[in-house]
Amino acid sequence: MSSSSSFPGLSTRRIEAFSDGVFSIVITLMAFQIKLPPIDSANAAQELPRALITLWPEFYTYALSFLMVGVYWIGHHNAYHHIQRSNRPLLWMNLVSLMIIALLPFSASVLGRYMDNQISVVLYGSNIIAIGLANYAQWRYALNARLVNAEIEPWFVKKVNFRMLMAPAVAVSSILVSFINTRASVLLYLALIVFYMFPTALDRFRK
Amino acid sequence: MSSSSSFPGLSTRRIEAFSDGVFSIVITLMAFQIKLPPIDSANAAQELPRALITLWPEFYTYALSFLMVGVYWIGHHNAYHHIQRSNRPLLWMNLVSLMIIALLPFSASVLGRYMDNQISVVLYGSNIIAIGLANYAQWRYALNARLVNAEIEPWFVKKVNFRMLMAPAVAVSSILVSFINTRASVLLYLALIVFYMFPTALDRFRK
Amino acid sequence: MSSSSSFPGLSTRRIEAFSDGVFSIVITLMAFQIKLPPIDSANAAQELPRALITLWPEFYTYALSFLMVGVYWIGHHNAYHHIQRSNRPLLWMNLVSLMIIALLPFSASVLGRYMDNQISVVLYGSNIIAIGLANYAQWRYALNARLVNAEIEPWFVKKVNFRMLMAPAVAVSSILVSFINTRASVLLYLALIVFYMFPTALDRFRK
Amino acid sequence: MSSSSSFPGLSTRRIEAFSDGVFSIVITLMAFQIKLPPIDSANAAQELPRALITLWPEFYTYALSFLMVGVYWIGHHNAYHHIQRSNRPLLWMNLVSLMIIALLPFSASVLGRYMDNQISVVLYGSNIIAIGLANYAQWRYALNARLVNAEIEPWFVKKVNFRMLMAPAVAVSSILVSFINTRASVLLYLALIVFYMFPTALDRFRK
Repeated sequence: MSSSSSFPGLSTRRIEAFSDGVFSIVITLMAFQIKLPPIDSANAAQELPRALITLWPEFYTYALSFLMVGVYWIGHHNAYHHIQRSNRPLLWMNLVSLMIIALLPFSASVLGRYMDNQISVVLYGSNIIAIGLANYAQWRYALNARLVNAEIEPWFVKKVNFRMLMAPAVAVSSILVSFINTRASVLLYLALIVFYMFPTALDRFRK
Repeated sequence: MSSSSSFPGLSTRRIEAFSDGVFSIVITLMAFQIKLPPIDSANAAQELPRALITLWPEFYTYALSFLMVGVYWIGHHNAYHHIQRSNRPLLWMNLVSLMIIALLPFSASVLGRYMDNQISVVLYGSNIIAIGLANYAQWRYALNARLVNAEIEPWFVKKVNFRMLMAPAVAVSSILVSFINTRASVLLYLALIVFYMFPTALDRFRK
Repeated sequence: MSSSSSFPGLSTRRIEAFSDGVFSIVITLMAFQIKLPPIDSANAAQELPRALITLWPEFYTYALSFLMVGVYWIGHHNAYHHIQRSNRPLLWMNLVSLMIIALLPFSASVLGRYMDNQISVVLYGSNIIAIGLANYAQWRYALNARLVNAEIEPWFVKKVNFRMLMAPAVAVSSILVSFINTRASVLLYLALIVFYMFPTALDRFRK
Repeated sequence: MSSSSSFPGLSTRRIEAFSDGVFSIVITLMAFQIKLPPIDSANAAQELPRALITLWPEFYTYALSFLMVGVYWIGHHNAYHHIQRSNRPLLWMNLVSLMIIALLPFSASVLGRYMDNQISVVLYGSNIIAIGLANYAQWRYALNARLVNAEIEPWFVKKVNFRMLMAPAVAVSSILVSFINTRASVLLYLALIVFYMFPTALDRFRK
């Protein structure tokens, strides 16, 4: 659909290819950050299981980041199912959004290492808020500049807006909750991923 | 084929592009993990060949991981030759599958370094089992949700199922064998790659 | 448009896919260079915010490189909207251009760390000049070898030339300014990015 | 062209996308291996230029690898302009070829660091020979299995064969020359890149 040439302006083919590239690199590089600490090879039989258990927070952070970046990739996928043309401002808005998404593994690794530290909850939450606002700005711009397909209906746009603003809203709550309990904040981020995994009425609206 | 727009739902174009990205990064980054240890430049003539020989297990692990990830890429390629549409659950199942595949270089490097240690055989085997189940779940879901092309025949599906479950079955056997001999377990993983290299009756079923 | 097969020669599909790959890797890897320095976990509450503040120049350099590589990606995107066919010299010119663009994160990181050092301003500026000349040579070649679509108008080509040569021109000025004040040189590079963000008359010339 | 669906078998779309991914990662990651050694920030003004000059062999190796991987990417591009269908053996042959190409940055870095050491000339040469044979086997297989378009002419195939076998032939010569002079061997590798840059009669044979 996005390669449709009946619309004026640039097609969205390359914006999608480039974004897919960035998403897949962000998501994959994290797996290569996980490294077995050097162990005493003399009694590796006992050291190896211990070393693997030590890595547990890294696997946890990996899954957390992978799935959250996955949420954004699926969101990008769905948004560009409707965005049919691109122009210079959209390219820049997309770039800025990717720039902030590429920082998520950093924020997630800080959160994973210092889960009891409020600063790391605030850092991760700020990243989620910044991505949410960048994505929302991009989507509003695409709507206003009529870069989306014409048949899109108001109820649909409303529902997309709601889903897009859910992530920054949860992040704000999570930051507030962190003043009481940082572990509860982290659980809110997990609940957010589960929320985005469930199908929505939007999914049925595709011809 | 997968760009066919006569089907409702999202096309599989971007799911393929994103997955190709992840596969190609996983497979290529491993080559960059191989690094020559620092050698005494005064008598490099004698030190260099010795250093290269020391790297032998890393080259071995590299080939083992590259070919196994290759097996999964070819499997993905073949599956999405038949899967014609995507929806939210499929996107998530694919993401989870890629998340586990991206951990294979880690498991393979542990296996490469501690080949005589049963824990590393179990770790690598668990990874293979987890990928196998994730891939199988994705394929069954695509069949049940009618995301595949309609003309697919029961004997074909049966054969695909068999091939998909072969890898986790061999991994279970390999883990059992590791209680007797870990080197024999590693040979089973090699035999698995050779199995997937041979053409199959499935390959002839393409118009 | 670029997949149009009514032109002789190779299509530009793969040159675009390959270039998108290079751009997305260059732009994303930079985010993974940012690493939290090891901090004293005993009093992480005080150390963590301090460590994050220490990283400030790295975030600054990250944004500077990301946006500048973004400028080149958008330029590539726009140029290949008009370039419709490729041949061996074009493939090589594109490769050389990408080879120099891939060095930009290195130059930017040197500039970020030694912002008061004239050498780093000269290094970064030389990189910008080299990219500008490589891109300009590629574009002139595509025009002369008639690899662009036929309807392109002289006023359009003139405007593209102007925009393309703006970056190396600013880099030359920035190097000259660095003899007086290196901070002013860095501001010129920032102004360059802002210049490329604004829409241009060229953007309206698309059917 | 390669997306033509009038042929039986799998299209070559994904084999190209996956290979483009691998090529672009191999080529880009090398730039991120270049790192400024830590310098005394007290007198950075004098240390910085010295540190940059120390990096010279790394830039040299970078250019050497980038251009040689570029040769293989352009060769792949040209081969798959004619290869129109894929099957399981072709997918595997392509994977093995990419596996060996991904090792080229390693060989090149060893050559760059130990340019006067015959072992490093032999290592780099062996890599070039292995890639050449893997590529040639893939091309012959595609011809024999009739995966190429039907109109391809014998004189064309002959010329492609010649060009493909040139690289391993030069590598064999270079290894032989290394018994006399290793620097002359390195020059032969440079001459090889220049050879592949020149247009050929093959380039005119495209409709």
